Amino acid sequence: MNLLLLEEADFIAADRVVLRDRRLVHMQDVHRATAGDNLRVGRIGGLMGNAQVLRLEAHEAELQVAFDLPPPAKLPLTLLLALPRPKMLRRVLQTVAAMGVPKVVLVNSYRVEKSFWQTPFLEPEAIREQLILGLEQARDTVLPEIVIEKRFKPFVEDRLPAMTAGTLGLIGHPGDYPPCPRGLDEPVTLAIGPEGGWIPYEVDLLSKAGLQPVQLGARILRVETAVTALLARLF
Amino acid sequence: MNLLLLEEADFIAADRVVLRDRRLVHMQDVHRATAGDNLRVGRIGGLMGNAQVLRLEAHEAELQVAFDLPPPAKLPLTLLLALPRPKMLRRVLQTVAAMGVPKVVLVNSYRVEKSFWQTPFLEPEAIREQLILGLEQARDTVLPEIVIEKRFKPFVEDRLPAMTAGTLGLIGHPGDYPPCPRGLDEPVTLAIGPEGGWIPYEVDLLSKAGLQPVQLGARILRVETAVTALLARLF
Repeated sequence: MNLLLLEEADFIAADRVVLRDRRLVHMQDVHRATAGDNLRVGRIGGLMGNAQVLRLEAHEAELQVAFDLPPPAKLPLTLLLALPRPKMLRRVLQTVAAMGVPKVVLVNSYRVEKSFWQTPFLEPEAIREQLILGLEQARDTVLPEIVIEKRFKPFVEDRLPAMTAGTLGLIGHPGDYPPCPRGLDEPVTLAIGPEGGWIPYEVDLLSKAGLQPVQLGARILRVETAVTALLARLF
Repeated sequence: MNLLLLEEADFIAADRVVLRDRRLVHMQDVHRATAGDNLRVGRIGGLMGNAQVLRLEAHEAELQVAFDLPPPAKLPLTLLLALPRPKMLRRVLQTVAAMGVPKVVLVNSYRVEKSFWQTPFLEPEAIREQLILGLEQARDTVLPEIVIEKRFKPFVEDRLPAMTAGTLGLIGHPGDYPPCPRGLDEPVTLAIGPEGGWIPYEVDLLSKAGLQPVQLGARILRVETAVTALLARLF
């Protein structure tokens, strides 16, 4: 945790918060904070700044806070991601939040196992928990928007074209395709497939919606590694 | 597992192997292979090719193998990595093997907890197991070389300069430094610090050995994400 993220409910005054949950434990066990110490804080959806520990007791901490710094810019990106297996989903949510992706669409694909859609990790609170961990890691305050699309075809045919309009549409896909471009400034819509990749029918539909395949080389990467590698190369 | 990696001990003839371990279980449970099926195989340290399943029984499988394809090229890179915490170490070893890093030096740093050096995941067999998983994921056959340097100063002063000679030496380090370069063809020596980063004294010593700090932006990334992002951006 490189940034202590504060929720509205933590505030007892405009410049005072009281913490009682895992953030208190983290201050005690990892920061080993004591009264008078300063910590980096951020207000969810708002500015970042500093906190001074006023008191730190076994069951709660009180901090005086001041905010002056905007969070880092997000990437100009919408990420379309075939739903990963539950354990990978959690890590990917952390990673996309840490890397500054503002919007992720979790979509079905032929190679997504049906059971993946049953995971409790897709509950809004579970998604939010992982996103918060990513923001705390990277020092950001703004939660990415996560959209869930359980039906591939209606999403890609009816809603994706409007989402892709005015952006460079790319599909990260192994094969004999142009190399993934580097160092872009323009907005991008990027689709990343499941383990085993999109099937040709899905690549066709994505292409009709304005996305073109690009490749990162012969190596097959895990979803989390592929997401990070594609984002680091694109921007 | 996108490539079934074969060890010398698996061979019962020049074109025949017998498998009995986790690879047999993987063929049964994930590939759901039956006699006559074809699988991608690779010979550790050698060529890749195809196997045909001759028989697949509860306790062993016999495959006929032929090799014709060289493994993908490695990156022109030596990666100097402050020893990550044990759980992260395992994932990072998989990641570096998958991404094609040929040589990794695991080095001490002021912010590496002493207990990390006690982990059984640093045993040669444990390291090899994670590297194999990365090679199987990415379809490569050549194990990266892993060097362990438990003392920072003698390594950086006495051995690193020779290792860095003729390469572009870089330190991935947050701060007011030039941005990490993109799309290089030349050989690189890249140092990535621990959680919390190298301390100034370590950056000084690394600089004297020929490495210069570069940054990836304001976001603080976990070690595994930073490794992937830096490699994807550099090459």
